[in-house]
Amino acid sequence: MFACTGFATSGSTEPLSPFTFNRRDPGPTDVQIEILYCGVCHSDLHQARNEWHNTVYPCLPGHEIVGRVTKAGAEAARFKAGDLVGVGCMVDSCRTCPSCRAGFEQYCEKGFNPTYNGQEKTIGGPTFGGYSNAIVVDESFVLRVSDKLHLAAVAPLLCAGITTYSPLRHWKVGPGQKVGIVGLGGLGHMGVKFSHAFGARTVLFTTSPGKIKDGKRLGADEVVISKDPEQMAAHASSFDFILDTVAASHDVSQYLNLLKRDGTLVQVGAPELPLAVPVFSLIFKRRNFAGSLIGGIAETQEMLDFCAEHGITSDVEVIPIQQINEAYERMLRSDVHYRFSIDMNSLKQAA
Amino acid sequence: MFACTGFATSGSTEPLSPFTFNRRDPGPTDVQIEILYCGVCHSDLHQARNEWHNTVYPCLPGHEIVGRVTKAGAEAARFKAGDLVGVGCMVDSCRTCPSCRAGFEQYCEKGFNPTYNGQEKTIGGPTFGGYSNAIVVDESFVLRVSDKLHLAAVAPLLCAGITTYSPLRHWKVGPGQKVGIVGLGGLGHMGVKFSHAFGARTVLFTTSPGKIKDGKRLGADEVVISKDPEQMAAHASSFDFILDTVAASHDVSQYLNLLKRDGTLVQVGAPELPLAVPVFSLIFKRRNFAGSLIGGIAETQEMLDFCAEHGITSDVEVIPIQQINEAYERMLRSDVHYRFSIDMNSLKQAA
Repeated sequence: MFACTGFATSGSTEPLSPFTFNRRDPGPTDVQIEILYCGVCHSDLHQARNEWHNTVYPCLPGHEIVGRVTKAGAEAARFKAGDLVGVGCMVDSCRTCPSCRAGFEQYCEKGFNPTYNGQEKTIGGPTFGGYSNAIVVDESFVLRVSDKLHLAAVAPLLCAGITTYSPLRHWKVGPGQKVGIVGLGGLGHMGVKFSHAFGARTVLFTTSPGKIKDGKRLGADEVVISKDPEQMAAHASSFDFILDTVAASHDVSQYLNLLKRDGTLVQVGAPELPLAVPVFSLIFKRRNFAGSLIGGIAETQEMLDFCAEHGITSDVEVIPIQQINEAYERMLRSDVHYRFSIDMNSLKQAA
Repeated sequence: MFACTGFATSGSTEPLSPFTFNRRDPGPTDVQIEILYCGVCHSDLHQARNEWHNTVYPCLPGHEIVGRVTKAGAEAARFKAGDLVGVGCMVDSCRTCPSCRAGFEQYCEKGFNPTYNGQEKTIGGPTFGGYSNAIVVDESFVLRVSDKLHLAAVAPLLCAGITTYSPLRHWKVGPGQKVGIVGLGGLGHMGVKFSHAFGARTVLFTTSPGKIKDGKRLGADEVVISKDPEQMAAHASSFDFILDTVAASHDVSQYLNLLKRDGTLVQVGAPELPLAVPVFSLIFKRRNFAGSLIGGIAETQEMLDFCAEHGITSDVEVIPIQQINEAYERMLRSDVHYRFSIDMNSLKQAA
């Protein structure tokens, strides 16, 4: 074991604060990583505050990790000290179920082991995430990161990026298609970038007229104010695919009605309560309503490579770890363009 | 025009009763059909009683029609007097929109013209359906029927049959798959027969222990009592596809949770109010919730040919037209095994 530092919380109403803890020494297939940047995902806040009712404390969040390899185990032959790497939402899975064997570790039938609030199987206790100076991860769950991109802006690709990339790829979004992205936050702004990069006509739906200009800058061909019934009606039955990133309860029927025959609406935002789905809307156009969860490891690598090739990153506000509690409050007010990325160098200053 | 007889209703609370009316003389592309049998669909009752709030009276239902050609227009070259034919839910569509051109007339973007409660474009007024002695239909919406099968039992294939056949084909149900059929009524019993015929392991879900034996006779490999949480739990995350034929409000989440990763639940029963869909259930297995409406004309012909080849028909109770009001009451009590089929010969006795 070796000593690490980070920011963790000891209870659902406690702030995140400096925390020291042990990580396992890297085993033969492990990679030890010095963390350079960690994105701030809304899930981090949900978990820190026990909003999913399953948090084990102390809780040390962070699953949008970019760093540099400091040690690689004897059998972790794909990596060597100095390599730039990423770690996303998973640090392990059963590797034997049909989903794992098919490369869909995120749908592991025994449940994947999450990067934080999972089980540290070697030394016990919960897994601790990326709001820390170092992490040890089995090489099978470590991704290669290009040195061509701004690393702070690469970090959010590990969750916000793959969560939007995966469904757009799975449902084969591309040229000739009209694609909607609902919501312009951490997920939505990546959805706009990817849909645009895949060649689809991309329409952003937002409630905020103030986001029109930014939506277009990010790659939207058109921005629709979803509160305006006339604008919505003009798009009835015209979309091939809609990616809905809104995690709050909302009226999904207004988006289902915008799908063509055989169109698909995919939720990646996860409202806590069930959504009301009008069955007639599905039946009369054979419309589909589906969900999607992050992406598999091979697909995450594919996404990172695609981003390096096409110069795609997240729009980030880089913060020191000492501002994490304030960042959570701003995130709750949707006051972020469009993702916080923690510069882990700040952790040394704190020590 | 020529005079016809049938049973119609003059208002939402009126019984169906004898009715005389005119049909157009067959035009060059029309086929005139002597109706032999007409199935009784739950939609007939909804429409007769104005439960969809769009009924034009008098209303003469019936869209599961089997009959014999008596006249064919000069350009209706596919048919000649004496041919056995069927007519389903549609008598026309725009024929020019992308859905029509793709053979999906049921999803016509201008709306297909329904067999009853549509628009009789030649002589005006509403279209009148199959509870009558004759009908005139453009040959493009007339299906060929084999003489190998019992015609009374073929009639329900034109709606209940194609409504279940189409989604099972569209989502490629076949050998090696585990398929659920929810509900054992007019639609459900056809779903069981088709799923079994396509080679899938077929599981019937019913609330009625009394239907276990019949479910197995119809082709189910297993019957699950959906009110028993233990039986349901034993099937968690194991289905490739589920066809839900229940038109009443119900808890669809209990069926979504039975789907594997990438599995699809399709509603063909159409509850009036929206269904509550838990987004987490969709997200964590990339599950899909969809709807499906009858089938296109070419697919309906394919279904009829498949049924002739495999000896598949509906299980029917043949009734004279004079029992139609009683049949509606029994249908409301789910007291039918599994479809009423009206012997139109009875109409002559009534006259």
